[in-house]
Amino acid sequence: MWLADVVAPGRHLFGPRALPPFVAARRGKRPVRTYAGAGVDRRRTAGALAALLANVRYRPPVASGRPIPLRGHYAGLIRIGRETIAITTDTVGTKSILAEQLDRWEEIGIDAVAVNVNDLASVGARPAGLVDVISCRRADPKVFAQIGRGIDRGLRAARCSLLGGETAIVPELVQGLDVGGTAIGFFPRGRAPVTGARIRPGDVLLGIPSSGLHANGFTLARRVLAGSISGGRTRRRGSRRSIGVELLTSSRIYVAASEALADRPGTTGFANVSGGGVRNLTRLHRNVQFVLDRWPKPAGVFQWLAEAGKISPTELYQTFNMGIGFVVVVRPSSAAEALRHLRVAGYGDAQVVGRVTRGRGVVLPRLGPSYASYA
Amino acid sequence: MWLADVVAPGRHLFGPRALPPFVAARRGKRPVRTYAGAGVDRRRTAGALAALLANVRYRPPVASGRPIPLRGHYAGLIRIGRETIAITTDTVGTKSILAEQLDRWEEIGIDAVAVNVNDLASVGARPAGLVDVISCRRADPKVFAQIGRGIDRGLRAARCSLLGGETAIVPELVQGLDVGGTAIGFFPRGRAPVTGARIRPGDVLLGIPSSGLHANGFTLARRVLAGSISGGRTRRRGSRRSIGVELLTSSRIYVAASEALADRPGTTGFANVSGGGVRNLTRLHRNVQFVLDRWPKPAGVFQWLAEAGKISPTELYQTFNMGIGFVVVVRPSSAAEALRHLRVAGYGDAQVVGRVTRGRGVVLPRLGPSYASYA
Repeated sequence: MWLADVVAPGRHLFGPRALPPFVAARRGKRPVRTYAGAGVDRRRTAGALAALLANVRYRPPVASGRPIPLRGHYAGLIRIGRETIAITTDTVGTKSILAEQLDRWEEIGIDAVAVNVNDLASVGARPAGLVDVISCRRADPKVFAQIGRGIDRGLRAARCSLLGGETAIVPELVQGLDVGGTAIGFFPRGRAPVTGARIRPGDVLLGIPSSGLHANGFTLARRVLAGSISGGRTRRRGSRRSIGVELLTSSRIYVAASEALADRPGTTGFANVSGGGVRNLTRLHRNVQFVLDRWPKPAGVFQWLAEAGKISPTELYQTFNMGIGFVVVVRPSSAAEALRHLRVAGYGDAQVVGRVTRGRGVVLPRLGPSYASYA
Repeated sequence: MWLADVVAPGRHLFGPRALPPFVAARRGKRPVRTYAGAGVDRRRTAGALAALLANVRYRPPVASGRPIPLRGHYAGLIRIGRETIAITTDTVGTKSILAEQLDRWEEIGIDAVAVNVNDLASVGARPAGLVDVISCRRADPKVFAQIGRGIDRGLRAARCSLLGGETAIVPELVQGLDVGGTAIGFFPRGRAPVTGARIRPGDVLLGIPSSGLHANGFTLARRVLAGSISGGRTRRRGSRRSIGVELLTSSRIYVAASEALADRPGTTGFANVSGGGVRNLTRLHRNVQFVLDRWPKPAGVFQWLAEAGKISPTELYQTFNMGIGFVVVVRPSSAAEALRHLRVAGYGDAQVVGRVTRGRGVVLPRLGPSYASYA
């Protein structure tokens, strides 16, 4: 989901999430450029979540496990007996509306795994198990078989077990299919969570390309698609697939990248570039600046979105991953070695995308966007 | 959810769930008695889930944790390092439609915790952490504050931490508010999972009363309510609350019951009487018969449902908990002691409700219903 964290001060929640500002499409002649009434009021959502969290005050005795405070991060951590367990929950969101339009569901199955295991990878946790939740109007065996194939592919890439799930047939509550899940992970003996707390100025940002939009920004992307002359059947110049199919491309899974680097002392942070785009980097450390001065020029669907949707750079980089789906933060002396390990792990396309300096927030110097925080 | 497990043979999934047969209301003069087109095709759902699971074949290496096979049970179990972790995911389902009608949300917050921790209690796992998921059209701070208060109350009763959550504003996917969650639990040193595998003829069934419908059977209950003369504002004879408010009563939490008895060798099983009603007992052991010859006469809303809805006993006992929300199976020599421990733990209203014999399935001898299996 392209949802930003809203965490009440001092809470150890990785947090319910609120929508970041975004650009909504306008039909007809007006360009897709500004926030418009897409039914989402970001400030209202943030306020509602703060109201929920303000009421959750209970802290259980240590006999029930000890939560590890990790404010605003990708996963919740809890010490249970002799292990630290990481847990994260997320949904595929409105990407499933596009899947329904194209009647292709395998990608949604992969994404149900990916959105969760990539968040586990962002704290350096090794995925162990997933439970899926499908809420729908009715259960179509062909659709479910495709989702199952996708879940299988996702689990394979993440080396994770399916431990169960829930299928709710709730035609009065849900239109189409709402797919999500929860994943748990752990830290193999000797590994500490990689939280970003050790990040310091001078660290280098390595970026691993995304496979496309992953599962974020679809409310906006679908509107751009609907506003384009021939809808989902159009092809971009140079592409053999329709834009609809390109947008539906399943999320790349970064578990093997995290596994390759989480035990190395030169690794200081991991960030899944999910909802909130490059703002996600601020979740790792609030008192440094992430300077994205070598972010590659967006191509493919990102270029198409910018042009067809007439979306500003500031909106683009806080809504979509803009070509880089996962960022690894390393000490400068470890950068070359980290790139070698990533290559061996199957991420030969990783590259330096920026650096850490003094300051706060995230900046894209040549393009102009700058963001002070995540929300 | 009042959803039955559908598990592919040989899988270690606690499983995506399909709707059991149920009685749908008929508006107008015809009594609410038979299955009708409420938009749910049980066989179709079972087939769809089988199709999904048939495609999930991947089994990860042991370095990713070792799933413990527990076919068709309440929770998935996985061995992670030196601990066994239990995980369960469930939603509150269409009870939230009643909450919206009455504009009361605290009960839904409690239920989001209860539906999950009561499933953990059913394998003898101690709840450690919960993540919640709220999918909605828009986030109303007053509604979210009430849900937060409910979650807090639920966590307090379960001695569980909130570790995070997800709030998805997806007006194109969801009508109203869909609330669910995932809970993880563990087995304190020296405790083994309580799976029912040791149950044998002669064991005694202790029942702990429910607080009402909990979060199951609401698609049917709301129809009975809608068909009654004055809808949700009606009161039952002898009740000071409207039926709507009675139906919305939050689920009782049985964690303390499980905690009081899980370490005792005379305890052989726990069953949360959730979706599927008394059929749930078959999840504990497939080759014994559960004879419910001392099940208390249903009163309150259950009596009202039977009468106003003209629902047959067979449908009632496989759709609602019919007054008993949690069943503990014990050796006959441990029954008196177990009742004493339950009293100390706050369940002084526990009572003997039946016994285990040779055979299969569940029977209610005086009333007539008998069920061969869970699905």
